[in-house]
Amino acid sequence: MSSRLVAVDWGTSSLRGALIDADGRVLEEHSHARGILTVERGAFGDVFQALFGEWMREPGTRCLIAGMAGSKQGWVEAPYCPCPAGLAEVRARVLEIEPDRIAIVPGLAIEHDGVPDVMRGEEVQIFGAMALTGVRDGLFVLPGTHNKWARVEEGRVTGFRTFMTGEFYALLSQHSILARTLDATAPLDEAAFLQGVQRAGNGEGLLHNAFGARTLALFERMPASALSSYLSGVLIGEELRAQSLVAKTRQLVLIGAPALTRRYALALKKVHGSEARTLGSEATWAGLHALSSTH
Amino acid sequence: MSSRLVAVDWGTSSLRGALIDADGRVLEEHSHARGILTVERGAFGDVFQALFGEWMREPGTRCLIAGMAGSKQGWVEAPYCPCPAGLAEVRARVLEIEPDRIAIVPGLAIEHDGVPDVMRGEEVQIFGAMALTGVRDGLFVLPGTHNKWARVEEGRVTGFRTFMTGEFYALLSQHSILARTLDATAPLDEAAFLQGVQRAGNGEGLLHNAFGARTLALFERMPASALSSYLSGVLIGEELRAQSLVAKTRQLVLIGAPALTRRYALALKKVHGSEARTLGSEATWAGLHALSSTH
Repeated sequence: MSSRLVAVDWGTSSLRGALIDADGRVLEEHSHARGILTVERGAFGDVFQALFGEWMREPGTRCLIAGMAGSKQGWVEAPYCPCPAGLAEVRARVLEIEPDRIAIVPGLAIEHDGVPDVMRGEEVQIFGAMALTGVRDGLFVLPGTHNKWARVEEGRVTGFRTFMTGEFYALLSQHSILARTLDATAPLDEAAFLQGVQRAGNGEGLLHNAFGARTLALFERMPASALSSYLSGVLIGEELRAQSLVAKTRQLVLIGAPALTRRYALALKKVHGSEARTLGSEATWAGLHALSSTH
Repeated sequence: MSSRLVAVDWGTSSLRGALIDADGRVLEEHSHARGILTVERGAFGDVFQALFGEWMREPGTRCLIAGMAGSKQGWVEAPYCPCPAGLAEVRARVLEIEPDRIAIVPGLAIEHDGVPDVMRGEEVQIFGAMALTGVRDGLFVLPGTHNKWARVEEGRVTGFRTFMTGEFYALLSQHSILARTLDATAPLDEAAFLQGVQRAGNGEGLLHNAFGARTLALFERMPASALSSYLSGVLIGEELRAQSLVAKTRQLVLIGAPALTRRYALALKKVHGSEARTLGSEATWAGLHALSSTH
């Protein structure tokens, strides 16, 4: 019997898989442009077989899937696990698709004053980051299209909030009046980015401060190549302003693509003087391994 | 000699004109789908002649134009008038296109910590609202794509800020993930709108609170027909939160389309217990008349 794990992160627009041995070592890794939006209802099993059939061939190999594949629009809906939740609670709600062969991890849900909040996939990255860093109390920040800020206490996620920062940046830099004067493809300009972060601290709010990216261009105070960094700073600065949790938290862990975590590290240092530990995609594999090992 | 005024509000996407007699009475009014974006460089004179030549025929008739026609992309660039500015300051910077016949009103500019802010056309509405209401000290709020909040003291605009609330609403309700579940064409649902306004008061910021319009749909807590009102409330509530000016201001004047001013009146009453006076397009004509009479 194999004790290999096929770990899959099946998101809305992309799909990644890793073949992991019993000790958690990644043996192979693949990405595919087969996010759940590209898969027709009823076709998930076939897509899975085509992409991972080879890895699954060895008897006893198991697969654990995280991400939007467990949503209503995915393969099988895995109902959200309520917070607070640690490895034990999430593991208890892992949903078997093919018993002892393929299973899917539920996301987390929480409610603030009657309004729900959710994550799917990030909880696995958080568990992975805990395993890799040993941090069991802290604030875990996961930048992306819909960023998650999660509070972890004694190894359990006790609270979290979503921020649409990535999506707002895409909308504003591509579809708003700001798109006319900024260069969305320009590389990060750290000075302009930190200028935006600082600007967000004026308390006038995003709806006003975003307009500064328009007028700075209009009065030729900032080149097009710096404006996208400035706008990014205004957005991330606004996100940080809402984090009353940061100051109270000793340990900060950033998980995500380096281009994004770098911006958050810069902004957190500027606003709170905080240093953060940073992890990338390895957190997902470590999280699925952690969920699987004790399953 | 005629003392009639052809008053023109020439914006980015639309154009309105009014024929006004010496006493400020509107004799005729027209709208045309000829915003400055539809007019080629160099063709503004011809478009003006085609649309208003008839009204201008009587000798001595004068025309005063407000709005984006005075921007870089317009007929002639009328440089912004710095704040503080009252009728006298703006009048002194009215730019003649054809001496004693056609002139254009400059917009206003101000700077906050090195970042400029601007308006073009709204200053005319503010002067008009002052003339119509007699309010010479107060806060003037002009909802639209890019809302303006202007502080008026002793009949002069002493400060203002722009909020991109209208544009954010359009982006989020049409192009974001929220667009999948909300009905942007639904009429105002006052209860859902006020729920959004209240939500904005939690201090977690727009980037988080906007996501509530997603999760309320996901958990079927709010019908699609109410979600656009909820989102509108979250945005306007966020805009009001940034207004440290409101509490100190006795007189509040709202100027704009009734569908928008109604929302602001509801939100201002909910958040600050404030009552506002409300004006529509008549403010533009009264403002151009006021600028013209003493020119």
